[in-house]
Amino acid sequence: MLTKKPVTGMRDMMPDEMEVRNYVLNTIRDVYTGYGFIQIETPVCEHLSNLMSKQGGDNEKLIFKILKRGKKLHLDTAETEEDVSDMGLRYDLTVPLCRYYSAHKEELPSPFKALQTGPVWRADRPQKGRFRQFVQYDIDILGEPSEIAEIELILAMTDVLDKLTFKDFTIRINDRRLLFAMAEYAGFPEDEYESVLITLDKMDKIGMDGVLAEWREKGYADSSIELFSNLLAQITRDQAGIEICRKALTGILDPAVCDSLNKIISVVGQVSRAKVDLVFDPTLVRGMGYYTGTIFEIAMSEAEVSVGGGGRYDKMVGKFTGQDVPACGFSIGFERIMMVLMEKGFVPPDQRMKKALLLDKKLDTEALIKVFGEAQEERSSGKTVNITNMKKNKRFQMETLSEQGYTDIQDIYSKGE
Amino acid sequence: MLTKKPVTGMRDMMPDEMEVRNYVLNTIRDVYTGYGFIQIETPVCEHLSNLMSKQGGDNEKLIFKILKRGKKLHLDTAETEEDVSDMGLRYDLTVPLCRYYSAHKEELPSPFKALQTGPVWRADRPQKGRFRQFVQYDIDILGEPSEIAEIELILAMTDVLDKLTFKDFTIRINDRRLLFAMAEYAGFPEDEYESVLITLDKMDKIGMDGVLAEWREKGYADSSIELFSNLLAQITRDQAGIEICRKALTGILDPAVCDSLNKIISVVGQVSRAKVDLVFDPTLVRGMGYYTGTIFEIAMSEAEVSVGGGGRYDKMVGKFTGQDVPACGFSIGFERIMMVLMEKGFVPPDQRMKKALLLDKKLDTEALIKVFGEAQEERSSGKTVNITNMKKNKRFQMETLSEQGYTDIQDIYSKGE
Repeated sequence: MLTKKPVTGMRDMMPDEMEVRNYVLNTIRDVYTGYGFIQIETPVCEHLSNLMSKQGGDNEKLIFKILKRGKKLHLDTAETEEDVSDMGLRYDLTVPLCRYYSAHKEELPSPFKALQTGPVWRADRPQKGRFRQFVQYDIDILGEPSEIAEIELILAMTDVLDKLTFKDFTIRINDRRLLFAMAEYAGFPEDEYESVLITLDKMDKIGMDGVLAEWREKGYADSSIELFSNLLAQITRDQAGIEICRKALTGILDPAVCDSLNKIISVVGQVSRAKVDLVFDPTLVRGMGYYTGTIFEIAMSEAEVSVGGGGRYDKMVGKFTGQDVPACGFSIGFERIMMVLMEKGFVPPDQRMKKALLLDKKLDTEALIKVFGEAQEERSSGKTVNITNMKKNKRFQMETLSEQGYTDIQDIYSKGE
Repeated sequence: MLTKKPVTGMRDMMPDEMEVRNYVLNTIRDVYTGYGFIQIETPVCEHLSNLMSKQGGDNEKLIFKILKRGKKLHLDTAETEEDVSDMGLRYDLTVPLCRYYSAHKEELPSPFKALQTGPVWRADRPQKGRFRQFVQYDIDILGEPSEIAEIELILAMTDVLDKLTFKDFTIRINDRRLLFAMAEYAGFPEDEYESVLITLDKMDKIGMDGVLAEWREKGYADSSIELFSNLLAQITRDQAGIEICRKALTGILDPAVCDSLNKIISVVGQVSRAKVDLVFDPTLVRGMGYYTGTIFEIAMSEAEVSVGGGGRYDKMVGKFTGQDVPACGFSIGFERIMMVLMEKGFVPPDQRMKKALLLDKKLDTEALIKVFGEAQEERSSGKTVNITNMKKNKRFQMETLSEQGYTDIQDIYSKGE
């Protein structure tokens, strides 16, 4: 007997959920198209060497690798996974986007406002609500160095959440350059900045005390730890906090970083039609190693965790072409949004009229021509018409159709009866 | 430097093509939904044991296999591909559908009219117009033994082709049971029927003379070859041909097969709004091993090859559950249809109004709030508004935007100028 269950950690989509997924995918595309984003697609398989180029952080440990084929596979002499594999399933859409842009940039508009959606794979330990195949929905702007990119991305995503009837969401924003300036100001060793920030990133989970304890464990100077935490304590989570940073970090931090953060917060705060709370958060780090500037993350009161995030990664295209290109992107946590919507019992609007015809099995060809002919007319006017044979347990059949939203159910008997 | 090209045999989708693909995908879904098909989805990864269960014919040789992970992988002792791999990328949507149906049938309507689309993978030798990742679009009816299933499937697909502005297509229809009856009538050895038909399937490529020669090479009796080819010569490609089979194969062929073919041809011929030529073709075999009854295939004058096909496979669900379930499906050749549309220069209807705003870089926050605020209004009324910084070579920038369909391009200068 063959195996009925899907493979470990991946799931089958039931029709009810698919209907909501389609609605959400179309809504997102519709909103993003309104901002001039254009859709592209890359293969789900990517060169293993691209996937393992240290752009993906911890995700590089979670790659599903694909076996080499034919004469390229030598199992007898194989020692490492790279000996038997040359491709992997993508773990995000950003690395493939930069490859794509590098290959096709002459044919693409500048700036290039890309829209992408599709599944990605991570061989995570399976757990509730977390799957090894999941959909991402990304927008990215390549070739735009100014904060217009950030404003467009953040406005577009608030618009999406608004259209999906979400209320009360908070966007936290920060800049990697500000974080590095804080580490420099505190006098941490330069080659430890990354490590200092990786600890800071755990704030949500272990609290400020936990962060301090981990810094001490790592053996950093008490003076540095004190300088950093004192500065952090002074910074308010608003535009005034940005000015505090500007002053405290004079000579270390490029003031353009502060100007840019101010502009983004002011414009989005004034313009977004969604009720969005856009706050400056000097503790926001975001794990992925590739960010170089602004970073942002959305949380909703309805979801326990972040439902999306992004930032600027000006150094990734250069890994493909040798020439850096300013880039900024935002990835929506599609599966998390779906989870909240399904738990809410969300029903997509504008369902079509559904009619079912239950046929007597004795209908002759002439009668069938009539039934199918009339159904074709109604279908072409936008109605769903489901033609099926009448079952012995017609009552149960009708109940089931009713549950599926069929409001008009008709029996078609042969003339003789 | 990282690799810019996509992996061998797979391709990047450019924005123009993506727009057409989206339109076609939505059109197909819209039509199929009108017939009461409901969408589901399965993971792209499938148990290798399911994929290699002899349901997939030659496709089983073309599977992309996924490397085992962690403690399950023992490269040092590995001898076969199955030692190092337990999953593969699906090569079609039918095997996963039967797994899905077996796992969830209690929660699904009966009959279950399934709609599925998504990429599938085959490690074919790369060649023009043929890719290793490609999209399939399938409809299947599970649990319906009568020809209502065939009629609904064929009507739905003719409707799709009609909506996509295709004219002049031919559907050939046959039944596996009729083919086996012909082989029995001619007196071929029973365990050679499959092989006899595999040769007949090459008719399109090698002609009747080629088929006869190959049968002789295989060492079949001259009397069998003569009986088969004489019968074939008598059978006209129309409903009269079905009656010739009924008479010639009396006692061998169940007459219900002829009744069913007649009903399908009559109803579809009368009802379809598309100009479809539905012909009985006693030489149609279709390669895949799993078909058990009706088989059909569409060709269009605009494409050199078949653009879709399907048939009845009543024995596949039983491989998962031990209990056979009547099943009939149709798979549209999505990539071939796309190729024809792109060659025709097809443009999707109903494009939205596109406006571009070119911003002076000196705009202050107040001016940006005004610009983005007004854009939000226009976006919410369905317009695309693309906001971008003005470039030094503004003339070129405007030309490019114009090529992308921006009919309204405005400069926004700061007040000072």
